[in-house]
Amino acid sequence: MVALENEFLAYVKKISAYNEALALIYWDLRTGAPKKGINQRTEVIGVLSSEVFNLSTSKEMEQYITKLSEKETQKNLSKTTIKLIEEVKKEYERNKKIPADEYKEYVMLQSKAESVWEEAKEKADFSLFQPYLEKLVELTKKFIHYWGYEGNKYNTLLDMYEPGVTVDILDQVFFELRGKIVPLVQKISEANNHPKTAFLYEHFPKEKQHAFSMEILKQIGYDFEAGRLDTTVHPFATGINTGDVRITTKYDESDFRVAVFGTIHEVGHALYEQNISGNLTGTPLADGTSMGIHESQSLFYENFVGRHKAFWKQNFERLKSFSNGQFDSISIEDFYRAINESKPSLIRIEADELTYPLHIIIRYELEKALFNDEIEVKDLPQIWNEKYQAYLGVTPKNDGEGVLQDVHWAGGSFGYFPSYALGYMYAAQIKQALLKDIPQFDELLEQGDLLPIKKWLNEKIHQYGKMKKPLEIIEDVTGEGLNPDYLIEYLYAKYHNVYKL
Amino acid sequence: MVALENEFLAYVKKISAYNEALALIYWDLRTGAPKKGINQRTEVIGVLSSEVFNLSTSKEMEQYITKLSEKETQKNLSKTTIKLIEEVKKEYERNKKIPADEYKEYVMLQSKAESVWEEAKEKADFSLFQPYLEKLVELTKKFIHYWGYEGNKYNTLLDMYEPGVTVDILDQVFFELRGKIVPLVQKISEANNHPKTAFLYEHFPKEKQHAFSMEILKQIGYDFEAGRLDTTVHPFATGINTGDVRITTKYDESDFRVAVFGTIHEVGHALYEQNISGNLTGTPLADGTSMGIHESQSLFYENFVGRHKAFWKQNFERLKSFSNGQFDSISIEDFYRAINESKPSLIRIEADELTYPLHIIIRYELEKALFNDEIEVKDLPQIWNEKYQAYLGVTPKNDGEGVLQDVHWAGGSFGYFPSYALGYMYAAQIKQALLKDIPQFDELLEQGDLLPIKKWLNEKIHQYGKMKKPLEIIEDVTGEGLNPDYLIEYLYAKYHNVYKL
Repeated sequence: MVALENEFLAYVKKISAYNEALALIYWDLRTGAPKKGINQRTEVIGVLSSEVFNLSTSKEMEQYITKLSEKETQKNLSKTTIKLIEEVKKEYERNKKIPADEYKEYVMLQSKAESVWEEAKEKADFSLFQPYLEKLVELTKKFIHYWGYEGNKYNTLLDMYEPGVTVDILDQVFFELRGKIVPLVQKISEANNHPKTAFLYEHFPKEKQHAFSMEILKQIGYDFEAGRLDTTVHPFATGINTGDVRITTKYDESDFRVAVFGTIHEVGHALYEQNISGNLTGTPLADGTSMGIHESQSLFYENFVGRHKAFWKQNFERLKSFSNGQFDSISIEDFYRAINESKPSLIRIEADELTYPLHIIIRYELEKALFNDEIEVKDLPQIWNEKYQAYLGVTPKNDGEGVLQDVHWAGGSFGYFPSYALGYMYAAQIKQALLKDIPQFDELLEQGDLLPIKKWLNEKIHQYGKMKKPLEIIEDVTGEGLNPDYLIEYLYAKYHNVYKL
Repeated sequence: MVALENEFLAYVKKISAYNEALALIYWDLRTGAPKKGINQRTEVIGVLSSEVFNLSTSKEMEQYITKLSEKETQKNLSKTTIKLIEEVKKEYERNKKIPADEYKEYVMLQSKAESVWEEAKEKADFSLFQPYLEKLVELTKKFIHYWGYEGNKYNTLLDMYEPGVTVDILDQVFFELRGKIVPLVQKISEANNHPKTAFLYEHFPKEKQHAFSMEILKQIGYDFEAGRLDTTVHPFATGINTGDVRITTKYDESDFRVAVFGTIHEVGHALYEQNISGNLTGTPLADGTSMGIHESQSLFYENFVGRHKAFWKQNFERLKSFSNGQFDSISIEDFYRAINESKPSLIRIEADELTYPLHIIIRYELEKALFNDEIEVKDLPQIWNEKYQAYLGVTPKNDGEGVLQDVHWAGGSFGYFPSYALGYMYAAQIKQALLKDIPQFDELLEQGDLLPIKKWLNEKIHQYGKMKKPLEIIEDVTGEGLNPDYLIEYLYAKYHNVYKL
């Protein structure tokens, strides 16, 4: 049986090799590939992607899965191989259940819908996008039918991004979250002690922001021998392999926060992938276990480290030394309050820590209703606006800053949004567990000694890659299931402090 | 038959797609890929290369070649397909004739030999490298036996890099070249009118060199929408596809010539690949037709443009404006003479225009003798030193600056060196033909109007890619076969001028 196991591992590594080449191609496309080469590069992407699809759904793969899933056989397999089988089987079944022509229709629709969405957003005209979105929803509903579902149709979509998390769980935690955040947002909007923020927007040269960011990355423990920092329009982190996890950022010279907090966010993602166990390298298990756990790592660093007062006790003087003097008359307290200002707004990606979950909850409620046939695509703009008014007290002037703001639906990514809020709750819960082992968390931040924190996350979370499911990680690390209370407590404490409520 | 032709084209494009992914991976490895990711990246290279090898030597490929090579069939094929068949057939046969185990032994030996060579060069100890070189030569001789040869065994090696060029041709042109250059070198070394060069070595900041290089690249006509400029230890140009041809350079702050002439050299290569006909994109025909023709383009720009006095009439003031003042008291005449200084030296890659061909001729004579069993590997150091004394009047102090200086032999690249000198002769011959169509060449340089020159090269050479063989290009463009006289005339005129002989 060892022979078959080895054959299977070689086969899987081949698929991973193509995926690694693709990851590099995508990184290159986003960091400066010359535009005249893009058409031909798209052909290359097509060839490699088809090869990945063919290998993942081949007769050969079917046989590996069948033979290596037998109980007797599994007794002799390594734990990693058993997980691998589980992983490729899921992929195999997902792909095999959809008729090839419908899948092709879907892929073509996706790419068309993205360009239509772009135009619709620009013109703030939902009617342009509506027929495409209707078709995408219709096809996705068909796919749910092929894939099957348990309990709720939307569960099948959630499972793609956050295996184990269901509508039952989300309904409960989002209900609680919303119930606690909405009144706090309300209270803050009525407070008369708002932080002064004008100084945030003064000119901060790009090169200086870069130099400061580099120091912060080193402090946090990003391994530059296993990564690099580049500049892009939309910042991202990409794990090309575990020894090559790259991040990008962008610089806004009239708002240093874009680069600084963006970089800290991306390095949270990067630390995860840089520290996955070397045993998993070159397999699909060498990846974050879910979008939510991934986001928990980026949000942990961005919010629980980067927006913590203790972190700035270490770094405010450093920031000052790189700036052109914009902070010279600013106290650390005023700085801390300014970077933690909360203000209900329309655009998710610009939202602050407190209001952010509400943006996600709105999308969740809409998607869930959509896939359970409770609302129709044409109703989305109106319901969107009503919910923004109800939860955040703001109403979009048009659909461009409303229902059309995110690209996700144009790409057919239904079920993805909840990961953002899950990641946030996970992060707060993980932080609580970390405090039991490292009660001197604040002191470490103040001393700029962040490596023990990274090491703890490496051991508890990062190393496992996809060897553990998201809720398994949460239970193993925190001793309980998903619990939104930690996030709520954190937000209450923080915003009472910032706004002196 | 159209069906089979289309099938074949799709098959070939698939191979090209893998090769394009590989080209990007190599570019990335040389421009800053994080070192901890390299092991896994090597696995990816292995998978993609094997796939290319398998597809190129498959039963399926054999059938395409057989069927599409039939005379009756060929009547209905496009000219491009016929060329493609010729190209893949050559590759197929080359690969098929070597027993798989011997090829594997060779590949492993190559990689081992390169690291041994590095150590041997550092320690200036040929004895370390000797057994590996002996084995490489032995295996290459075996391969020549498998491949067969016409006239001279070394012809088979030449044919890999410069199809159509033979020992008969090279013996004749190199004999003539050597006979004319050696006395000129001698004469110059005895001249008492050597250019002053101290000012070349003053501090010229990297960023300023970069900014100047960018202006020159634009002047020459490099298309930045189909390329980019990066920094590497060893400068190179790489055509990832015809719309994505990247160049790199390096900056030496105490010698601006490294970046300036290096960049001009690489852009010569890049212009070639950027301007191959779009019809050939995504096929193996979208490549330079030979190493020699490729080198003719880089040397044309580096020497016939970049080291021309008229070019500096346009650009000397520009260079001054970027420098820290090192040229302020220098006349354009002195500048021109300084950048064209000739001095016999030991290291090929640092050689000037005049002595460069002698370095190549020495390697050619050694390789030819080696593969015709006239000398043995162990004799190389001594013969090397004797030839350097005879042709250049200098003798290496040790093998590190002698026989061990180039990496080519460690990589098994026998037959490659002549391309460098061929490219030089081609360039001079092409320049002569260009003058017939563009007699105002000097004026164009002086006005910085280089685009008509680029356009001429695009039309006469670049567009064809591999659709024409090297000597076919030379005959079509110049109306005669390879003729070393143009280079000799150029060197005589130039160096009599520079040294006022």
